[in-house]
Amino acid sequence: MTIRVFRNARIHTGDLQHPPAEALAADGAEIVAVGTEAEVRAAVGGGAELVDLDGAAVIPGLYDAHIHTANYARELSQVDLRRARSLEEALAAIAEHAARLAPGAWLSGGRWNSNVWDRPVQPDRYALDSVCPDRPAALPSVDGHTVWANSRALELIGIDRTTPDPVGGQIVRDEHGEPTGILRESASYPLRALGAEGDLVAELRAAQEDLLALGLTSVHDIDGEDCRDAYLRLRDEGALKLRVHKAIPVDHLEAAIDEGRRTGDGDDWFRTGPVKLFSDGALGSHTCHMIDGFAGDEGNHGIAVTPYDDLVKLIRTASAAGIAVATHAIGDQANRLVIDAYEQAGRPAGLRYRIEHAQHVRRADITRMARLGVVASMQPVHCTSDMDLVSTLLAGQDLASYAWRTMLNAGVPLAFGSDAPVEHPNPFVALHAAVTRTRTDGTPPGGWQPEQRLSVGEALIAHTLGSAYAAGEEGRKGVLTPGRLADLIAVDTDPFTADIDSIPHTKVLTSVVGGEIRWQRS
Amino acid sequence: MTIRVFRNARIHTGDLQHPPAEALAADGAEIVAVGTEAEVRAAVGGGAELVDLDGAAVIPGLYDAHIHTANYARELSQVDLRRARSLEEALAAIAEHAARLAPGAWLSGGRWNSNVWDRPVQPDRYALDSVCPDRPAALPSVDGHTVWANSRALELIGIDRTTPDPVGGQIVRDEHGEPTGILRESASYPLRALGAEGDLVAELRAAQEDLLALGLTSVHDIDGEDCRDAYLRLRDEGALKLRVHKAIPVDHLEAAIDEGRRTGDGDDWFRTGPVKLFSDGALGSHTCHMIDGFAGDEGNHGIAVTPYDDLVKLIRTASAAGIAVATHAIGDQANRLVIDAYEQAGRPAGLRYRIEHAQHVRRADITRMARLGVVASMQPVHCTSDMDLVSTLLAGQDLASYAWRTMLNAGVPLAFGSDAPVEHPNPFVALHAAVTRTRTDGTPPGGWQPEQRLSVGEALIAHTLGSAYAAGEEGRKGVLTPGRLADLIAVDTDPFTADIDSIPHTKVLTSVVGGEIRWQRS
Repeated sequence: MTIRVFRNARIHTGDLQHPPAEALAADGAEIVAVGTEAEVRAAVGGGAELVDLDGAAVIPGLYDAHIHTANYARELSQVDLRRARSLEEALAAIAEHAARLAPGAWLSGGRWNSNVWDRPVQPDRYALDSVCPDRPAALPSVDGHTVWANSRALELIGIDRTTPDPVGGQIVRDEHGEPTGILRESASYPLRALGAEGDLVAELRAAQEDLLALGLTSVHDIDGEDCRDAYLRLRDEGALKLRVHKAIPVDHLEAAIDEGRRTGDGDDWFRTGPVKLFSDGALGSHTCHMIDGFAGDEGNHGIAVTPYDDLVKLIRTASAAGIAVATHAIGDQANRLVIDAYEQAGRPAGLRYRIEHAQHVRRADITRMARLGVVASMQPVHCTSDMDLVSTLLAGQDLASYAWRTMLNAGVPLAFGSDAPVEHPNPFVALHAAVTRTRTDGTPPGGWQPEQRLSVGEALIAHTLGSAYAAGEEGRKGVLTPGRLADLIAVDTDPFTADIDSIPHTKVLTSVVGGEIRWQRS
Repeated sequence: MTIRVFRNARIHTGDLQHPPAEALAADGAEIVAVGTEAEVRAAVGGGAELVDLDGAAVIPGLYDAHIHTANYARELSQVDLRRARSLEEALAAIAEHAARLAPGAWLSGGRWNSNVWDRPVQPDRYALDSVCPDRPAALPSVDGHTVWANSRALELIGIDRTTPDPVGGQIVRDEHGEPTGILRESASYPLRALGAEGDLVAELRAAQEDLLALGLTSVHDIDGEDCRDAYLRLRDEGALKLRVHKAIPVDHLEAAIDEGRRTGDGDDWFRTGPVKLFSDGALGSHTCHMIDGFAGDEGNHGIAVTPYDDLVKLIRTASAAGIAVATHAIGDQANRLVIDAYEQAGRPAGLRYRIEHAQHVRRADITRMARLGVVASMQPVHCTSDMDLVSTLLAGQDLASYAWRTMLNAGVPLAFGSDAPVEHPNPFVALHAAVTRTRTDGTPPGGWQPEQRLSVGEALIAHTLGSAYAAGEEGRKGVLTPGRLADLIAVDTDPFTADIDSIPHTKVLTSVVGGEIRWQRS
């Protein structure tokens, strides 16, 4: 095993009792020492590999507790150049798509056809560099036989003037022998494998780069069984770079039980998560289940998607099979019914109950959640995206909405996530929302229902240790202490000292998962 | 088994020696009698169900020999309303997407968010009817909790004012009790299942309606293993409505052999097809393999994607395992090498060799194809889409390009298809291209290289019996005679008597697969 010492850093271990450390050592995937550089180097002895973090702030790797990574990966692969009728139109579309991606993440999609452009010449990497200089770009042509790559992509897969053409492929070169960025047939395969359209394995392979670039080192994925299969393929190939806790769709519960799947099964890269149940719908669709209904939609109290008795039955079935339960509940009545159902079903040994979203809750029910140990898996950006709608539709109701402060004070464990692609997965935007209850443009001034704001430390814990706790992984993740996994990120903005308004603009510099650098800003 | 008599029709059986028949009887999935109505009714006796085809022309169900149905299905589900900022913007996008769909096929996609529209009210079916009156439309909202349906969709799933709300769902109604077209939570499930975004099973379920509406009753699918899995799921559910012959990707050949898969395995709904190999690339990318190269791209002769020795080895491996071979070859050199390789590997017992595309071929090699019994699987619309590019890039070369007439005269079996979504899958546009060698706008007048034109009968046979022959299914499909499958379509334009320019506008009226009406124009 390689021993690495990450040094010259300001390491916030996640244990708020202690001042930042200077260095951290990992032996293989696990942390073996944290402290001053002298302490850490003494602990590991000679022969360790030194990684200089240039004085950057370090925090535990961020953990998204609720994300649809397959849907998100599909969106990332969607720059569609079929309608472009000139190089300029294609470049404009690429620039727009690039603006939505995480810094340094790969740009994919494509489907360009230079034969229908006003000047039908094959494009080159310099044109692509002009709109996408700082991240690798690899864009298959509409016929799939060519990839148009930028300089960064060529560099990353090690193609230069000295690279011979592979068997069954061609690296197109200019008159000086320099690769132009056009890779034909098998010469394009290494790049195509990173995000081929319509192939979920390739799309997730590309998307994990995007997520790592955002500082996420673990996710609770809420998508389907196809997503599970794709992640298992990546893991078996040794190509998985971030850790996955994979939920089971409710309509697959029976099959999962039949095959003996249990929550926590797996390894540190891929574990089976909880079954995902639904108690109600969503606010925007007027289908969240409310005690008092919606303004301007009299008589509608939303929808109990799963009748109460079925909910109890499903919870008991899952629990008896060793499968944890995470139930979607947005409205106060939905949350109440889920808490009732959890209470009635009884607490299963070794498993944690979760409520996903827990957006609008009665205060008395928060106390009950705490008593029953129910984790609130919440998405801070849902608050800032939906607050205007809440003020309109749920006006005058006695609700605790996105009630992070009330939850924490009551002793409800908080786990944070994004619900991407419903919202962007950037966890630093989530931290800002949790700390300010304003949008990133600062509105509304002072924050919406500001009494529910959290401190930076509290929000960060919810997005690291809190998500780990929701998965029963708090002994492995979320805090940088010996014996836990060496999952950490170096950032250009120290969240504990920076102005809060700069936090959404945080740049991740290095993402380390299992003691190895899995992504690095160039 | 139900016996059905399809009567009051002008039935072109595909056997050009005989005049059209008046009636056809199916006992279950198979044809038992064809002839005058009197003959057919006498043959089946009393108790048969009569289906009146209103005097329409009938032809054998069309068979696409080369189509990427998973990619096509994904495109159909792509109307994306996330950027709409008003009901009017959403409706404009819907109208544009609808224009690309087959007549009567479902409209799916969605992701609208009326909360961000200029007037944030939930839309209704009347608005949707105004741009999409004639086909069912079912559009999930961005949060996935609501489906916006039009009147046609409500009608088809049997929702009206008397339908009670299902458990866990709501059929939103106006003040008179009429459904508005907004279906919430479980009330939307029947419609969502038809084409939920990102779920290939649901997308293929929707896409088969589109293909049936175009008159296709069988396909050779060229997409991946995920597509195979999805089709098998549909078949096992009894939900498959068109017949699938499923190719094996070359990188899955070894695994397919290990599991004992053989070409022809399966049943009439789903059979294992050939392994798909690649000899070269594509014309538009300058990667098809040419003896003489490309104008303006000196020294480039395209790419031999699979080296010759590997090609021979792969062909032998597949043949020994009972798996047929279909090899992609566009350029003359690629076609020559494939023919060489087929010759060297020897003819496998009970299996047919195919070349996919066979676009630019030397005349001497066409004679060799005929001698070796190699099927040419070609796409007529590739000719009319690419002819200008051919005239430019391959000017002055002694090629037989899209040489249907030369192939037929030499005795090469032809199988026709679309390569959708590269081209639209409408087989009537393909028939027009094969018969005229012009685009549907009539250009170039007289047709491009008109000596290669086919008659309507020849083109139709290539798109029915020819595709069946390529799959070894000529005893089951392609001709409407007793003992074969009752796969047939009724159309509003008799291809044998109509003006050729009207053929691309043919409307399919009824698609029958296995003796049952699987799609019908409303």
